[in-house]
Amino acid sequence: MIERQDSANTLVVQKYGGSSVATPEKIKHVATRVNKRLTSGLLGVKMAVVVSAMGKATDELIALAKDVSPNPGARELDVLLATGEQVSAALLTMALRDVGVAAVSRNAFQLGIKTSREHSNARIQDIDFSLLRRDFRDNSVVVITGFQGVTPDGDLTTLGRGGSDTSAVAIAAKAASIGMETVCEIYSDVPGIFTCDPNKTPGARKLDYITFEEMLELASLGAKVLHTRAVELARKYGVTLYCASTFSEERGTYVVKELPKWLEGSIVTGVTVARDQMKFVVKRIPGEGDVLTGVFQALALAGVNIDMIATASDEDLSFLTFTVLDGDAETVMKTIRVYMEENGVEGCAVESGVPVAKVSAVGDGMNAATGVAGRVFSALRRRSIEIRGISTSDINISVLVDGAKADEAVSLLAEEFELKNP
Amino acid sequence: MIERQDSANTLVVQKYGGSSVATPEKIKHVATRVNKRLTSGLLGVKMAVVVSAMGKATDELIALAKDVSPNPGARELDVLLATGEQVSAALLTMALRDVGVAAVSRNAFQLGIKTSREHSNARIQDIDFSLLRRDFRDNSVVVITGFQGVTPDGDLTTLGRGGSDTSAVAIAAKAASIGMETVCEIYSDVPGIFTCDPNKTPGARKLDYITFEEMLELASLGAKVLHTRAVELARKYGVTLYCASTFSEERGTYVVKELPKWLEGSIVTGVTVARDQMKFVVKRIPGEGDVLTGVFQALALAGVNIDMIATASDEDLSFLTFTVLDGDAETVMKTIRVYMEENGVEGCAVESGVPVAKVSAVGDGMNAATGVAGRVFSALRRRSIEIRGISTSDINISVLVDGAKADEAVSLLAEEFELKNP
Repeated sequence: MIERQDSANTLVVQKYGGSSVATPEKIKHVATRVNKRLTSGLLGVKMAVVVSAMGKATDELIALAKDVSPNPGARELDVLLATGEQVSAALLTMALRDVGVAAVSRNAFQLGIKTSREHSNARIQDIDFSLLRRDFRDNSVVVITGFQGVTPDGDLTTLGRGGSDTSAVAIAAKAASIGMETVCEIYSDVPGIFTCDPNKTPGARKLDYITFEEMLELASLGAKVLHTRAVELARKYGVTLYCASTFSEERGTYVVKELPKWLEGSIVTGVTVARDQMKFVVKRIPGEGDVLTGVFQALALAGVNIDMIATASDEDLSFLTFTVLDGDAETVMKTIRVYMEENGVEGCAVESGVPVAKVSAVGDGMNAATGVAGRVFSALRRRSIEIRGISTSDINISVLVDGAKADEAVSLLAEEFELKNP
Repeated sequence: MIERQDSANTLVVQKYGGSSVATPEKIKHVATRVNKRLTSGLLGVKMAVVVSAMGKATDELIALAKDVSPNPGARELDVLLATGEQVSAALLTMALRDVGVAAVSRNAFQLGIKTSREHSNARIQDIDFSLLRRDFRDNSVVVITGFQGVTPDGDLTTLGRGGSDTSAVAIAAKAASIGMETVCEIYSDVPGIFTCDPNKTPGARKLDYITFEEMLELASLGAKVLHTRAVELARKYGVTLYCASTFSEERGTYVVKELPKWLEGSIVTGVTVARDQMKFVVKRIPGEGDVLTGVFQALALAGVNIDMIATASDEDLSFLTFTVLDGDAETVMKTIRVYMEENGVEGCAVESGVPVAKVSAVGDGMNAATGVAGRVFSALRRRSIEIRGISTSDINISVLVDGAKADEAVSLLAEEFELKNP
C-alpha cells in the first residue's frame, strides 16, 4: 500500500501554492491543516512546509520591476521575486506558532539550497540537510521559501514557473537519499488529477493513482496542479507525490512509480488535449531523407516549434505531415518554399496549415492491451470526427482532429475508456 | 575644510530613506542622483548605497503580520520586514543599470552584516568587507539593504527604528577602520538640521555644521533626519555625516567632530522642545537621601519614565522636582503615597502633576561662554513665561515651561541667540 504509517524517521514535505496562502485567513487555515497533519500521525514526525508567494504577489513584483525598468535584468529580478516567498514563509510560521506548533522559517540562503547560475530558471544542485536537521532539533515544522535558491557565489536565483513544486520535491528527494522515509504532498486549489480537464469535460473522474510516466504524458491535465520538472525530479528519485486541495478534506491523487498491485489498472488513465496546432502536409518529397532533414533544420532556424511528425514513404517519394504549436502559417510555408528553391528540390506540394487539436489518450496499461488504436478510431468515427493524423508511443495514442471538435473527441474517448463518473 | 576631494581610496556611503524610494519614479530619480555623484568626482570612486523600504512598506508588512497573528513574534517579524529593503535594493539596482551604472544589490546575508541576537533591535557587530571589495571589482555601486543583519546563527535581524541610518554609518565606520577615506551622506525629504523645528518656529535657520555632541542633545530636531544610534556610532568612529534632501540640490548639514576652525562658533546652535511632560514636586522629604532613592526605585518598578530631576535641600529636609514622560499622574501619585506609608515617612507633601514642556538650548560654545543661563531667563521673563524648573549640562540648558507656552519660548530663545534667518 502507498499510504504507509508515518514513522519517527519520516519527513513529511508539504507544499502550498500561491492561492492557498493568498490572504491572512487562508494562511491561518493552512496552519491548522499543518497542525492536524502533525498531530494525527506518530509523535515526533517532522514536517518541511514549502510555500509559494501570496496570491498574485509574484506578478505584482514583476509589474513593479517593469515600472522601474524596461529591462530589469535577471539577477535583480530574482532578488526582487525572492521576497515574495519570504513574506509568506514568515507569515505562515507566525500562524503556526499561534496554533501551538514549534515552527521556524528558512529562506534559500539559510537552508543552503544551492542552484545553478541560470537566473529565473535555475536548477537545484544540492540542499544542505545538516541545517534542516539542526532546525528540527527545536522545531517540528520548518517553513521553507519555495521557488528560490542561491548560486555558489551567493547570488539569489529563482527556479522558474512552478518552481515551488520543484523545491518541495527536491527536499523530499534529498531526505530519501539519506535514508529518511518521505512523502511530498502538493496542495493547491485543485483537488487532484482528473481523467480529463473537468472544466471542459463534464463527468471527468478524479484519479486515486497515476504513474509518473502517465503524469508526464498528461502534463496539460496536471499543469495547474504539478509542474513537469517536479514530476521528473520525483520520478528520478522515487519520491511519491500526493496532490490534493488545500480547501477540502477530499482525497487527492497519488503520483507513483507503479500502481499498487491490488489495483486493477485501466488501459487508459486520462485524455488530454493540446489546442491551437496547425497541421501541414508536404507531398511527394524525393530522396532518402536528406530533404526531410533539411526541411526540419530550416524550420528550426526559423524558430518554428514542431510538435507531431509523421511520414509515409512510397518507393522513393515521401509524404510528410507535421503540426506546429502556435504557428505562423506564412513563416512555415515560406521557409519550406525557400528551402526547396535553394536546394533545387522539385515536384513537392505543400498544403497550407489547417487548425487542428491533438487529443491524446494516455495509460500505462496500453502497453499490454491490444486494439486500443481501433477503439480510439471507431469511437471518433462513430460520430463522424475525422482523424487527420496519428502518432503513438508505448503509453500514448494521439490523434489530430479539427480544432472545433476537440472537446467532443475528448468526451467520446473518456466514455469509450470508462473515465467518467458513473 | 570638511568637504575634501574624493580620492581613488574613497568610499562614498549614501543612504536613502523610505520617502526617497517610495515610488518607481522616485527610485529612478535616486538612480540619476547616484550616477551624478559617481561621475562628478574622481574616476574610480566607489559607492555603497544603503536603502530603506519603499514609503510605507514596513508599516504595511507590520499590518499584514497583525492580520495573521495577534503576536507575530520578533524572529519571524524580522524575516518579514527584511523583505522591504530587499525590494527597494533590487529596484534601485535595476534603475542604476538603466542609467549605465555598473551596480549590484546585496542583502545582509550576502554582505555578512553580523549583528547581536536581539530581534527588532539588533546591534551591528561586524561587516565582512572582503565581500564588498569583491563586489567592487566589477561594480561601481553596491546597493545594500539597510535596517537588517544576520546573527551568528544565520537568523535575520532588524536594527530598530532608523536602522538604515545605522547600517550606512556602520559601513562607513568599517571602511574608515581599514584605512579608506569615507563620508556618509544621509538623504531624506528634509534638507538638513535646523536651529529649531522649522514647522513650529518660523524663520528657523538651516545649519551648515553641527557637532556630534550638539546633534545628540538636539535629538528631537534631527529625529526625522538622523537616528540617534547612527549619530553615536558616527561619533565613536569619527565618520563625518552629511544630511540633505533627496529632492533638491540645496546644501545640507555636516555633522562633525569639531566645527571647522574658520567658522566662528555660535554660543547656542539650536533650541529643541520635549512636549507632554508632567512635573511633580515632593516637599519636605526627611533624611539624607534614602527616601529619595526609595521613591525613584518605586517609580521605576511602577514603569514610570522619569526625565528631569532637580533637588534642593534645606537643612535636613529635601525638595524634589521631577518630570515624567507621557506620564500617568495617578500612578505617580499613588506610587509615592504607598511608598511613604509603607516606609513610615511622614510630613511630606506631594504636588500633583502639572503639564509642562522642556525647552533646551544646546551649543558647544556654551561651555566657554558666561551668562547663558541669565540670557535664557531674561528672554523668557521679558514675555512673562514662568520657568518651572531648570537643569544644565556642559552644552545644554533646559527649562520647564507651561506646555502651552513651549513654541513661544523656543521662538524667544531662537531670537535671543540669533538662530533665525535675518
